[in-house]
Amino acid sequence: MTLAPGNVRFPALADLPPPVFEMRLRVYYEDTDAGGIVYYANYLRYFERARTDWLRALGVAHRDLAERDGLLFVVRDVAVDYRRPARLDDELRVDVRMIEARRAQVRLAQVARVDGQSDCAALALVRIAVIERAGGRPAALPPWVAQRLTGKETDDR
Amino acid sequence: MTLAPGNVRFPALADLPPPVFEMRLRVYYEDTDAGGIVYYANYLRYFERARTDWLRALGVAHRDLAERDGLLFVVRDVAVDYRRPARLDDELRVDVRMIEARRAQVRLAQVARVDGQSDCAALALVRIAVIERAGGRPAALPPWVAQRLTGKETDDR
Amino acid sequence: MTLAPGNVRFPALADLPPPVFEMRLRVYYEDTDAGGIVYYANYLRYFERARTDWLRALGVAHRDLAERDGLLFVVRDVAVDYRRPARLDDELRVDVRMIEARRAQVRLAQVARVDGQSDCAALALVRIAVIERAGGRPAALPPWVAQRLTGKETDDR
Amino acid sequence: MTLAPGNVRFPALADLPPPVFEMRLRVYYEDTDAGGIVYYANYLRYFERARTDWLRALGVAHRDLAERDGLLFVVRDVAVDYRRPARLDDELRVDVRMIEARRAQVRLAQVARVDGQSDCAALALVRIAVIERAGGRPAALPPWVAQRLTGKETDDR
Repeated sequence: MTLAPGNVRFPALADLPPPVFEMRLRVYYEDTDAGGIVYYANYLRYFERARTDWLRALGVAHRDLAERDGLLFVVRDVAVDYRRPARLDDELRVDVRMIEARRAQVRLAQVARVDGQSDCAALALVRIAVIERAGGRPAALPPWVAQRLTGKETDDR
Repeated sequence: MTLAPGNVRFPALADLPPPVFEMRLRVYYEDTDAGGIVYYANYLRYFERARTDWLRALGVAHRDLAERDGLLFVVRDVAVDYRRPARLDDELRVDVRMIEARRAQVRLAQVARVDGQSDCAALALVRIAVIERAGGRPAALPPWVAQRLTGKETDDR
Repeated sequence: MTLAPGNVRFPALADLPPPVFEMRLRVYYEDTDAGGIVYYANYLRYFERARTDWLRALGVAHRDLAERDGLLFVVRDVAVDYRRPARLDDELRVDVRMIEARRAQVRLAQVARVDGQSDCAALALVRIAVIERAGGRPAALPPWVAQRLTGKETDDR
Repeated sequence: MTLAPGNVRFPALADLPPPVFEMRLRVYYEDTDAGGIVYYANYLRYFERARTDWLRALGVAHRDLAERDGLLFVVRDVAVDYRRPARLDDELRVDVRMIEARRAQVRLAQVARVDGQSDCAALALVRIAVIERAGGRPAALPPWVAQRLTGKETDDR
């Protein structure tokens, strides 16, 4: 078994591309746990809210995609580095950074930080893809979506 | 920006060590989303339930650790590979596999699979550590905990 | 405005009918909040798990009902009396008590208590009904479901 | 057993006092379930967010109350009438309406409605109280809090 330490390598904040989107949200009781900090799974909820609002700002609402194209965004994999706990009443800034958009998947980085702090609460690397709503088979991004994500024709290398 | 594809490399199921613990749980409405499948963040809840029950089976209850030693387990990082969606009413088997236990952190793999299916719904690599409840500073695993996790004196390389 | 205090009147535990179903569950970190107790919305998750397992024990799985009859159980209203907080690592017993089953709705009481305690953590009064999956219109309980819930032909007064 | 139907009586929307606070929020995947609608427990999360933001707007942040006064707001009971399902991507308006503020408890009504719809998605009656953080004993609202909630000295009948 050679699953070495450092198997998941997280980049430094300074090495990430700049945000293409940012939202603010508040930490409520529902988000915290008995340790007094934001429960680790809830960052995935935050990151998904930011991705959803980013897509909506680009004109790609989940419901439209489902009804018009019969498609669904799904997360293929995600890695989260928890760097500094956030607490009740904190205001968070959660962003979206584009790593790569290809025909069948999009790779993003996302940072959640407590407003006013320079280091981040959590950093995520996310790979999302599109599947057919009925059946669940992988699908290509529809051209109208790909164009909005990249600002150009999709790269199909 | 050189965050290459394959940055997070997930092992094949066959390359993981065998489970040291397994629990069963049911997929309820609360776990699913409008896509009809288990919401991606909820696997982190499942994995944490399995870790908690595993630790309790070893005699390490969270509340005891907090009250006796003033310590708290936290997740340092986690990576999840979503391989096959689970659905409402599915029964899941969620396990814990030990990768490495050191003085200040434990690395685990965890697999969630739908009962009766050979491939997994989700596979996680998790790094957990212990912090001081008051203040949040990193701490070493107490010897009584380390011994129960490893079945021997902790490895302190 | 005459919304008098006592608007919601909760029965004493001794005045409830006996349980027709009971399940056990553990309080995990995901269930608690920064106040150190189970977050109030999570009792609704617990109560729904108990209803789901009760229905499954009667042979009424949600997925079957959706696929065979195109029907969905929904909660019409719920009232919860929070009596004594539950905490991390507590083992809860959550039950289902039948108040009344009619053609188009079922009224239940549900009690969650910490194992070994005589008074309850939370007591709920729940009214559930069945709707058509497509469209959302109210529907009658299918006869096969009604029979299993009541042990006889449904009462259709 | 005389737990009559209509045990919980919900007021008509027109009979409620006007809102003292309103917030907007979006329905994300995390909020929905496999029935395609907002999961019933999640309205309690929404209502708590609105109460928290309302209290913060009045200068009563949970963390301050905990650290300054050693006090915690808790929900004593809640009743929710689910009137019309909300769905993915809906924008909700969630409000707070004051029914009664007394020395040791506050009674509120809260309405969640989909933006642009006249009837509500859910209507809640909530009774909140204050407890001591250590020990959990009931406490009176601190005068500075009571004044902000009512705009005057608390009514202590």
